[in-house]
Order: sequence, then structure tokens, then C-alpha cells
Amino acid sequence: MNSGLIVDLQQLLPPERLFTDPVDCYAYAYDNSRNYHAPVAVVFPLHIEEVASIIKLCNLHKLPVVPRGRGTGTAGGSVPEVGGVVLSLERMNKIISIDPDNRMVIVEPGVLNQELQDAIKGVGFFWPPDPSSAAYCSIGGNLATCAAGPHAVKYGVARDHILGLKAVTGNGDIIKTGCYTSKGVVGYDLTRLLVGSEGTLAVIVEATLKLTPLPKHTGGLTAEFIDTESCAKAIAAIMAQPYTPSALEFLDNGALNLIRGRHKNLLPENAKAYLMIEVDGSEQEIHEASAAILQACQVTGLIEAKLAHDTKALWAARKALSPLLKDIAPKKINEDIAVPVSRLPELLTGLEKLSSQYQISNVNFGHAGNGNIHVNLLVNPDNAEEMKRAYECLDEVFSLVLSLQGTLSGEHGVGMAKRPFVSREIDATTMALMKSLKLTFDPNNVLNPGKLFP
Amino acid sequence: MNSGLIVDLQQLLPPERLFTDPVDCYAYAYDNSRNYHAPVAVVFPLHIEEVASIIKLCNLHKLPVVPRGRGTGTAGGSVPEVGGVVLSLERMNKIISIDPDNRMVIVEPGVLNQELQDAIKGVGFFWPPDPSSAAYCSIGGNLATCAAGPHAVKYGVARDHILGLKAVTGNGDIIKTGCYTSKGVVGYDLTRLLVGSEGTLAVIVEATLKLTPLPKHTGGLTAEFIDTESCAKAIAAIMAQPYTPSALEFLDNGALNLIRGRHKNLLPENAKAYLMIEVDGSEQEIHEASAAILQACQVTGLIEAKLAHDTKALWAARKALSPLLKDIAPKKINEDIAVPVSRLPELLTGLEKLSSQYQISNVNFGHAGNGNIHVNLLVNPDNAEEMKRAYECLDEVFSLVLSLQGTLSGEHGVGMAKRPFVSREIDATTMALMKSLKLTFDPNNVLNPGKLFP
Repeated sequence: MNSGLIVDLQQLLPPERLFTDPVDCYAYAYDNSRNYHAPVAVVFPLHIEEVASIIKLCNLHKLPVVPRGRGTGTAGGSVPEVGGVVLSLERMNKIISIDPDNRMVIVEPGVLNQELQDAIKGVGFFWPPDPSSAAYCSIGGNLATCAAGPHAVKYGVARDHILGLKAVTGNGDIIKTGCYTSKGVVGYDLTRLLVGSEGTLAVIVEATLKLTPLPKHTGGLTAEFIDTESCAKAIAAIMAQPYTPSALEFLDNGALNLIRGRHKNLLPENAKAYLMIEVDGSEQEIHEASAAILQACQVTGLIEAKLAHDTKALWAARKALSPLLKDIAPKKINEDIAVPVSRLPELLTGLEKLSSQYQISNVNFGHAGNGNIHVNLLVNPDNAEEMKRAYECLDEVFSLVLSLQGTLSGEHGVGMAKRPFVSREIDATTMALMKSLKLTFDPNNVLNPGKLFP
Repeated sequence: MNSGLIVDLQQLLPPERLFTDPVDCYAYAYDNSRNYHAPVAVVFPLHIEEVASIIKLCNLHKLPVVPRGRGTGTAGGSVPEVGGVVLSLERMNKIISIDPDNRMVIVEPGVLNQELQDAIKGVGFFWPPDPSSAAYCSIGGNLATCAAGPHAVKYGVARDHILGLKAVTGNGDIIKTGCYTSKGVVGYDLTRLLVGSEGTLAVIVEATLKLTPLPKHTGGLTAEFIDTESCAKAIAAIMAQPYTPSALEFLDNGALNLIRGRHKNLLPENAKAYLMIEVDGSEQEIHEASAAILQACQVTGLIEAKLAHDTKALWAARKALSPLLKDIAPKKINEDIAVPVSRLPELLTGLEKLSSQYQISNVNFGHAGNGNIHVNLLVNPDNAEEMKRAYECLDEVFSLVLSLQGTLSGEHGVGMAKRPFVSREIDATTMALMKSLKLTFDPNNVLNPGKLFP
């Protein structure tokens, strides 16, 4: 079957846009989840029609086709788990139009997040989703995973900044969703149905994005606490007052120690939990918001909360956290659960208890303003007994999260990584409907098959 | 068939929650589109399970069931066009919880928009969708139509302010979508697929809404112009600068004359086009935004742009426009098309040309910041020749809108009214997919059948 498909693909694409040599294909066999499965081929379409033709061929041969942005996802969403063809969108990388008067851009899916930001900064705008991989992740991938980042607490996530799409469904049909206006209600909202669907319903081939004016000014604050619990109480208090910070990042003691090991004198020595806070807007707004946030930090357990005048090094250190974690443990079980912010004290103290109960080192940090915490269980995959304890611990982490009205993934998605746990969050009836929707878009189940669902 | 269904409904519901007398049913036979079709029964469930049971009975008897909020829609979405049962959600009207710490509420669908606003104002929040019928329209209806209003230009529409739903699909299954956190990416985004689907996929029985902090201060501005074209240029210039107004409403000469007839001395005599502008935020933001907006208004054709210190009477007059229109013409053909704001000059001058060409009186006003204009063709339905001209004119209005990259409906929806024109905006492939989705949710096509699609 594979060879028949490859012969057909050779008819469609020139050799430089069709990889079949395993060596060439290697870089398309994994993502940041570190799952590895080799595809039989990697294709690089340049046009919508080519994407449609490739998907039709995969239907003809009943072989999987796995769309891929830049492979920076952490849940295995773009890994060709059951073989087949990787459909890389990286060469469809044109910014088609920049329309500052209407606050919109049209882009191909392979445009990098940072390339877009650089292109629109000059006309006074940004596109809010800002994952830490912004420099090398693509807009298509950002949309497929409904990406977010530190600024989501004020500006929302990818689905809040999209107006329309062109996409190719699982049977190779080209569809057009949404509109080129800031409001529109004709037909079903297929746009947001595709956002976050991890390439299982359709391949995004063009996106009309909504732009946001750059804030006039930004300001920074930091707050140090004697323990996680007091810090969590401050987070809840910050979010319960009306000034919304533009970022509210939490670092626990494990995360602080990692940064301390790499960046001397950047962080206070006695803090066991830490907040990095950004505010933006007019100077008055920053002044008022900073005062309100400093006030909200006044909980028992606060060491110091203060304005920070140069936060550049601090943000760079925060961004470097994920790679630092890989250095100290050969593998981390990386989760990105979210709970309502008022439940963060229970979540964070609960996580500490589980870490101690199961004797699993645990580093927690993340987008606290959304209640979205990256929980990292640090493990040695060669230690079978430790791995067993880690997975037991993880199971209890999920139980805790769901008991606090939380969700198993705030921004990373399901992919392969969270698939075994999805049915603990989504009931059987709703799940069955989602599976029917999948088949409505992709009757032969060729598009990223097996992802998302248990 | 009808009588069998009614016998079954009588088993399920007490008499005071099941209307079958045509006199009782009359008020549930129409909406603000003034289409009238009598249902065989009106049911008033109190619980999710009752909604599911009613829908299952309608499946059993293969009879339509038409969900209804308060019938304030203008597109006929809640009219029981092909008979069957009207499922009124008006008695499921509890605010289930108000959670200011997490900026969320959970409501039943029958809660009125204004009731919700009143309940959350005291804790410092509002829910942005603000249709002019806010005092008597329901949250369920707001969600089913993806309602908006004047503040959408800054705050977005219903789909931007929803986190999760409970709903009953067309085959009576209870589903739960979304989450109780401000971020979440587990499973497909069914929440936003249901928002704006006009009760054709599932009946919304509970909603978790995202709240927005009330602005600290608001300010008002007005601007008068010698003609529509200069006003449209000012609108585009206002939206092209970075300070987003919280409302930007346009009134053409016809709309101004209607208000002048009712409210003496409220409006300047010589203005032929008028903008009512609201800004909100900190005092500094209002100051800066007002200055930038006044500057953007400096186009050729401006009579005067100024700060308005008491805009209450003006906003009341704006809100009263729709009923005033009904007074002067027995029928109006009311459209709510939207175009990219930069194309408004072409749209508004084009509308004037069409009005003169077809000799059809035309009153235009609306949410200019979204490019969303309510086009009202004033006609006498007893004049067959005039009606013919009006529909020819309407056809050209739609052609104009689509040629300007616009949409046929910014906020009213399709329902019955726009159905004949939908295929001019949505291509056949995408439409076929939407119809398949409908049947995935509603295999027997009992839920608001015939709506939305041509």
C-alpha cells in the first residue's frame, strides 16, 4: 500500500518536496513530547490544491496523513504514530496580506509566530498567542493546538484571535470558514471548531487573524513568598480584583532552584514561591493596577512585593525553564493542568503532598492567572520502580485537578500524551458525539488518526 | 401524529407547563421578524432531563421541536415554521452561581440579559453582549444567535464570553462542553459550535459565562458630518488608530430624521450623518482616546466633533430607533450586513445609490466600529410593485456587501430571513459539511428543521 501511495505522490510533487529516505524523514518523526514514529514519507505542499490532492491520495490508499507545523507541541499531536505521510506546512509560509486599517492579517500556516509579530509590530499591532516556542513555532500549529502563553490571562488564546480559515477536510474537500469582518453569524462556527482540533478534522491552509493594538506601556512587579500556599492565595486575590494583569507567572521552589543554578543573583535566596507580574496600558492604568496588585499580594507569608524596573533578565530566565528541566532529569512527565484560580491554593498544596507521598520530585510553574500550572514530574526512565510511582502520582494529580473543577490541559492539548485520561474529563455521550464529528469531517479516518481520543 | 405526541407530553408535564390551546400558543408563533406559524403545543421544561425527554418524544413521533428564548430575534430563528412543538426555555430562569473570584457565572438559559447584568453589577462585572432588547431577551437566545450590540467593537460577541455549556442534542442526548477554567483544550470546541447555531444542533440548557470587569470610567463623543461619505471615512480613520472605542454608532440622515421627529432639539439640525462614540477605561485612557478619536474625525465634510458630557438622552434615542422605524412604514426589510470598516465609505455611498436607483426609502444605522450596518428598506407590503423593487434592491445590496468582502449578517443570524441568500456567502462544499454536522447532532432533523440552510 505504501509503495502505491509513494508512486502517486511522485507524480504530484517534485523530488525536493517529497522525502522518502528514512534519514530525511527522521526530523519529522517526533515532536517535543519525544515520542518517535517514522513516517513513510514527508510531503511539502506549496498550495491549497496540493494539500487537497495529497489528502485525496491518502484516502485512495487508506493511509494516514499527519499534518505538521514545526513539531514544537508537547503532547505528540504531530507525531506520525501509525506511520503514513507527514504533511509539513512549513513551506506554505507567506504572509498574504497585512491590513492594519481593518486590524487583520491573512497568513499561510507555515508562517512562524515570531515572523508574524515582527511583521505587524511596525504598524502597531501584535497577535496575542505567545507560546514560549514563539520563535520557531508556526501559526498553523498555534491554531491547531489553540496555543496560548503568558499573555492569555489578559488577551485570551488562539481561538479568540481568529476570524476565518481555509482548510482541507479529511476527504480532501476545500472549505472556507468565518469571514473578513470583525463580526459574522452566517452558518456554523467551523472556524473555532477547527482551532484546537489538532489536525484531526481538517488541515488549516490559510488563516485570517484578528490583530490587537500594542499596549502603550508595560510595567513589571515581582512578589516573593515563604511558601506555595501563601503565594497561591495571593494569585487568587490578584485575579479577584478588577485590574487584570497582562501576565501572572508562578514559579515554585523547584523552578526557582533550577533558575538559581543557572543565573546567579537573579532571584532572592529565601523565596520559596515567586510571582512575575506584568501590567500594561496607559501610565495611569499601570500605576493603578500595580497598586491594586501590590495590595492583593499582602497575604500572610509574603516576603516582599515590589515594582520591578528591569524584568528582561527575569523573563528570559522564565522562558529558559523548560530546557533547564530537561537538563536535570532525563525525562519529565510534563502536564499543563488548569483549575479555577480560586482553587489554586488547594491545587498547589495538594501537588506538594502528592510529591512527598510518592517521593517524586516535582517542579511546578506556569500561567497562574489562568490557573494553568505546568506540573513536571522529574523521573529517570531507566528506574522502573520510580516510573511506576510517577504514573500512580500522575493519576492522583488528575483526580485532584478534576475534583477542583479543573481541566487536564490548559494549552498543550491531548495528542497522544493525555489521550488515556480524556474520558475522565469528557463524559461518554459527549465523547461519542465528538467521534461522530471526526468522521463527518474525515470519513475514512485518515487525518491524524488515533489522536485525541482514548 | 400530533395527537400521539400531545398524549405523551401530557404524561410528562403538568397542564400549566403544556399549552395546546391555539390562543395560549399564539404568543409563541412569531418573533420580531413578524413571521407567524402556529405550533401544535408549547412546552415549558424546568430541568435538563425534561428537555431531553421532550426531544426524545419529538424524535419518537418525528415531529419538529423549536427551541425559544424570548422570541426577540429578527430573523425568524425561533418561529415554528413547520409546526411541531415550541420548547420555551423561559421558566429555566435561575442564576445558578455567581463566582466573582473566578469571573464566572453559571446560568439557566431563560435568565434575561438585564437580570444577569443587574446581578453581577454589584460585584463589579458585566457580560458584554448587549443587544438593544437586553431588558427582555434571554441568555439562551443570546447564545443561540451569538448576540452582540454596541459594545462588541471593543468587547466582542457572545462567543467570546462563554466557557462551557450543557446542551441537549437533536436526539435527546445530554452533552457537556467546555470547562470551568479560563483556558482549556481537551476535546473539540463544541461550545462555540453551538453558539450561533440558532437551536439547530442542540438546545442550550445551562451556560458558564465569562465575566468582564466594569470599566472604571466612561466618556462620550459625538461627531456630525455633511454627508454619509465623509462620516464613513471618519469611521474608518477612528478604527485605524490604536484606541478602540467601546461603542461607535452611526446614524444616517433617515435615522436622524426619525429621531428628530420624536425628540426635539436632541440632534443638530444640519447634520446628515452622525456618530455616537463611547470610550472607557482609566481617566487618562479616556482623555487620550478622546483626543485620538477627535483627531481621526478631522475629515473633509466634518461639521463638528466634540466631547459629549451627557449622552444619556442620546443613547435612549438610539435604542428607540427600531420601534420608530416600525411606526413610519408598515413593514421594513431589516438587514444587518457587515463589511470590513475600511470599506464602509464604498458600502454607504453604494447603499445611497441603490436607494435612489430603486426608489426605495432606506434608513441605515448601526455598529459602525464593526462595519455592521442595519439597513432598513421601508416598504408598504400592500404595494406589490414597490415590494418587487425592494427585493431587487435587496439583492443588489447583498451583491455590494459580498463584493466588499462583507457578510450577510453581523449579528441577527440567518433563521428564515437570510436563508435564501446564504449560498451566496457560503460555498457549496462548506455548506454540505455544515448540513452533515447538523445531521450528526440531529439525525432525525427534528431540531428547528429547515432553519439556516437554503
